[in-house]
Amino acid sequence: MRPSSFRHQSDSRYCFSLSVDKVLIRLAVAKEEEVEDVEVVYGDMFRFASEHKDMKMAFAHEDASFRYYEAIVTLFPMRIAYVFRVKQDGKWMYLCETGLGEGYLFDLAFISAFQFNGENPNDFVLPNPTWRGRVFYQVFPERFFSHLDAKAKPYVDTPWDHKSLKGKPRAFLGGDLWGVKDKLDYLASIGVGALYLTPIHPSPSNHKYDVLDYFEVDPSFGGKAALFNLVKKAHGLGIKVMLDMVFNHTAYDHPFFRDVRQKGKDSPYYDWYFVNGDKPTAKPLNYLCFSRHFGMPKLNTNNPKVQRYLISVGQYWMKEFDVDGYRLDVSDGVAHDFWIKFKIALKEIDPDVLLIGENWLNAESYLGNDQFNGVMNYPFLGVASGYLLGMKDAKQTAEGLEGLLMRYKDGHDAQMLNLLSSHDVQRTLNLCKGDKELSLMGHAMLMFFPGFPMVYYGEEIFMEGGPDPDNRRGMEWGSEEFSSSLHQTFVSLMRLHCKREFAQGQCHIREKNGLLYMDFTLDGHGYALWCNLTKEGKPFSGRLLLSNRCAGGEVWPKGFAVTEI
Amino acid sequence: MRPSSFRHQSDSRYCFSLSVDKVLIRLAVAKEEEVEDVEVVYGDMFRFASEHKDMKMAFAHEDASFRYYEAIVTLFPMRIAYVFRVKQDGKWMYLCETGLGEGYLFDLAFISAFQFNGENPNDFVLPNPTWRGRVFYQVFPERFFSHLDAKAKPYVDTPWDHKSLKGKPRAFLGGDLWGVKDKLDYLASIGVGALYLTPIHPSPSNHKYDVLDYFEVDPSFGGKAALFNLVKKAHGLGIKVMLDMVFNHTAYDHPFFRDVRQKGKDSPYYDWYFVNGDKPTAKPLNYLCFSRHFGMPKLNTNNPKVQRYLISVGQYWMKEFDVDGYRLDVSDGVAHDFWIKFKIALKEIDPDVLLIGENWLNAESYLGNDQFNGVMNYPFLGVASGYLLGMKDAKQTAEGLEGLLMRYKDGHDAQMLNLLSSHDVQRTLNLCKGDKELSLMGHAMLMFFPGFPMVYYGEEIFMEGGPDPDNRRGMEWGSEEFSSSLHQTFVSLMRLHCKREFAQGQCHIREKNGLLYMDFTLDGHGYALWCNLTKEGKPFSGRLLLSNRCAGGEVWPKGFAVTEI
Repeated sequence: MRPSSFRHQSDSRYCFSLSVDKVLIRLAVAKEEEVEDVEVVYGDMFRFASEHKDMKMAFAHEDASFRYYEAIVTLFPMRIAYVFRVKQDGKWMYLCETGLGEGYLFDLAFISAFQFNGENPNDFVLPNPTWRGRVFYQVFPERFFSHLDAKAKPYVDTPWDHKSLKGKPRAFLGGDLWGVKDKLDYLASIGVGALYLTPIHPSPSNHKYDVLDYFEVDPSFGGKAALFNLVKKAHGLGIKVMLDMVFNHTAYDHPFFRDVRQKGKDSPYYDWYFVNGDKPTAKPLNYLCFSRHFGMPKLNTNNPKVQRYLISVGQYWMKEFDVDGYRLDVSDGVAHDFWIKFKIALKEIDPDVLLIGENWLNAESYLGNDQFNGVMNYPFLGVASGYLLGMKDAKQTAEGLEGLLMRYKDGHDAQMLNLLSSHDVQRTLNLCKGDKELSLMGHAMLMFFPGFPMVYYGEEIFMEGGPDPDNRRGMEWGSEEFSSSLHQTFVSLMRLHCKREFAQGQCHIREKNGLLYMDFTLDGHGYALWCNLTKEGKPFSGRLLLSNRCAGGEVWPKGFAVTEI
Repeated sequence: MRPSSFRHQSDSRYCFSLSVDKVLIRLAVAKEEEVEDVEVVYGDMFRFASEHKDMKMAFAHEDASFRYYEAIVTLFPMRIAYVFRVKQDGKWMYLCETGLGEGYLFDLAFISAFQFNGENPNDFVLPNPTWRGRVFYQVFPERFFSHLDAKAKPYVDTPWDHKSLKGKPRAFLGGDLWGVKDKLDYLASIGVGALYLTPIHPSPSNHKYDVLDYFEVDPSFGGKAALFNLVKKAHGLGIKVMLDMVFNHTAYDHPFFRDVRQKGKDSPYYDWYFVNGDKPTAKPLNYLCFSRHFGMPKLNTNNPKVQRYLISVGQYWMKEFDVDGYRLDVSDGVAHDFWIKFKIALKEIDPDVLLIGENWLNAESYLGNDQFNGVMNYPFLGVASGYLLGMKDAKQTAEGLEGLLMRYKDGHDAQMLNLLSSHDVQRTLNLCKGDKELSLMGHAMLMFFPGFPMVYYGEEIFMEGGPDPDNRRGMEWGSEEFSSSLHQTFVSLMRLHCKREFAQGQCHIREKNGLLYMDFTLDGHGYALWCNLTKEGKPFSGRLLLSNRCAGGEVWPKGFAVTEI
């Protein structure tokens, strides 16, 4: 048994509270170790030397490298010490904070056991009940719907139904927030529970990730009146609204940066950016930017003045427009120090505020200590696409997906924004090389994976779109897909997500009989999603086995099935 | 090569900023893997697919299970992507966030590389220059010195020089803060740079960990005037002052808890504690306490009112008495949520404030995102005592000590409060079974280990003391040890600590020729401490080899030596 085969750390993704008297304890064991039994020995921290209990740990998850054993320990008050016992070749070994050994000196527990304090509810990471079960729908407002005739708008330069937008990053099609409001009934009808709007602040671009004024709504989007009415109607329909905040950088022509360009070090905003010199210059580039793009100068979120300003921005849209949460652009470029203060300030306005970071890779350092609830889950797309493209088999995919769940505490997993496509990547239909059934199977995986599924506008009608900017075509409101059975199934899946219940540690993703298996609970009954691909990479031909309880007995497409278990 | 043999995570103790253009990248490799070469492949995150460099990683540290390879990468702006290359049996393998493989697809780096953003200085964990090089001295005020004759104090019930305090947890000997002030010249003369006072607030006990009033100084300690004058004089001597704050619980008779006992749910302080019932009762115990001790009811630091109150306490002593930092009692019982807000508030008063938690075990979750600078390092005592007691050899000890350094980012390691004894454990002389030279060798290890060495009062004169309360005897001001050569060496070691310089990653702790080896830098020259024990567990008989540059050529005791390297 190698000591390096085990991974555990207290007060981390390996040990976290589920409630005031329950803590989930997880031990990772390298798959090469053939362990026969794993137990946790635990007890009241102050009496551990003399009073402790054993509990068997269950094999719960596995990724490519590790098996994960879990136990839910119950104690009150939850101030525990614990060590592990691992059996191999009939012999028990003990694992504690100081290493692996043949025995364990309980009298020295105070400097060698693992310890956990679960007495403080503010530190619990639990899914927020007001957001649970919601399907997110991402809208790129310039491309969703125009309340009035788009063609009549003077700045519009591209027809709404232009086939491809490849090579047209600066096109204007004319969508606005009044148009989004018009379509809220549609969104409610398909089961959307939360609307995620890409940026809406005044900006010279169609995507508006280069903000000119954090306290206004772009006039071409209908200004503040449109947003106010949109949020009000959405709330009436039970839909929450999440805005996109761009705090990593401003537009080149934001008044703050314009002032710095004009006055250099004499500008009161000079230290709001990272300028190395008297004045910012694009050639040579002497200031920090997003991706060295001179048009997106990076804000210095380490500066207390910038921190106070951006916090006031976040407070403003919640207080004045009743916005429910934020998606935070380039969140991994902004100081942790700022995010911590931002969350504290916003929770004072609404303790249920949801913050989703845009972190493309492992985001554990941005989730700890109450920064974000979750992040956009591009790694989910990475694993799922490997399966959809036939590059990974069911076993590798199950291990990949469970590996993602093992990255964070369960409470964060339950609040990840899972996605197959977005304004930053090609549409799922293009990923699936035009195969709508394959796209649908991918969305079934999305709906039953722990966390929030995010549907990029038009995915439910299988819109086409290559990489940015072609993935931002005008929503095809005249599409025949709205009456297709595939669309109906898509909507059924969204509705199933809303009703899904996840008990802690209940989602198991496995390879079974060559199929990808993912379990979940609905109305107290257990179900499983089964996905399959033929050797040619096409969806397996099968039939829906889901009981009437859930989906009313429609004919489901080939490629996947849902069964009662 | 097992994938489970490698440990790395970005933005963690495996990857952290040293400055705006330097990041230390660390890869842990299981010792069973015979790797021939380790490299990091890195580049600007936005250009990584096409532009990247290789850098060899150096073998830097090892603990019982892993070898740690490190590289310091330089780039500006510090927004990097990176992967590792590991060579075994002549073949290179790639390690990225999604696993270990034979090749690496650089085009997919955006969902598979490690990424790090080092653009935000607020997130850097660096040793604070105003605290660096300071030796801490812990004073238990009731036992250090009485300004006036202790015997004249009516509450004193035990002679100052009472041989043993075993079985006398409630004794009063009469020390006070005026007495501590009187002895500041002595502390300055032996090279103390920071004074850590155990609690000084009004309290019925001699230790005062059961606080009656957070805004007062115990009258028996001399009240606020004594503290004010003590801090003023200490600052004049260049000594910083750290108070002990007890926020986990109050005294049973604190007015808040008394009010709850009287009025139950009608008390405005009812929800300042964790009471399960109308009124708190000791039998059966229906409220949370420290260690189920009914006399120390636990404060609810999740309550915003409690948070604001305790923050005002922390602000008060800094603003009104110019206190420089806090040691935080039972810090692992208090909510992270509180500590984060506490640090933010205190840094607004003094950005150099030092916060040291009382965490006995791995404290990584309390160090991240700017909670504490460091914690009391009892695990150092655990490893060092294994060596001093002859239970572990030099190799095991070196691995144990380097393992402690690998638990945290270097900046936290440099701010740990390392100790061999305190008011909570037996004195070093007792640990060493009366062997003063062995105690001195332990203190040499303490002085050269990265971090702050903490000397418990009287250790420098080799005072005796078994476990609490015997470790809290009156300071032996008449001891003959003050003129002993062992004491002189102790003081020389303290002075050497002050002059020590640690470049990042420069401390190596190894077994060499059966000796324990620990290197450090002084005046730009490299030195090493060598420690040894005979087979009988007695210090090795040797002579000091330290050059005149450092210590003036005194005769050093057997057991250890310092050499130029």
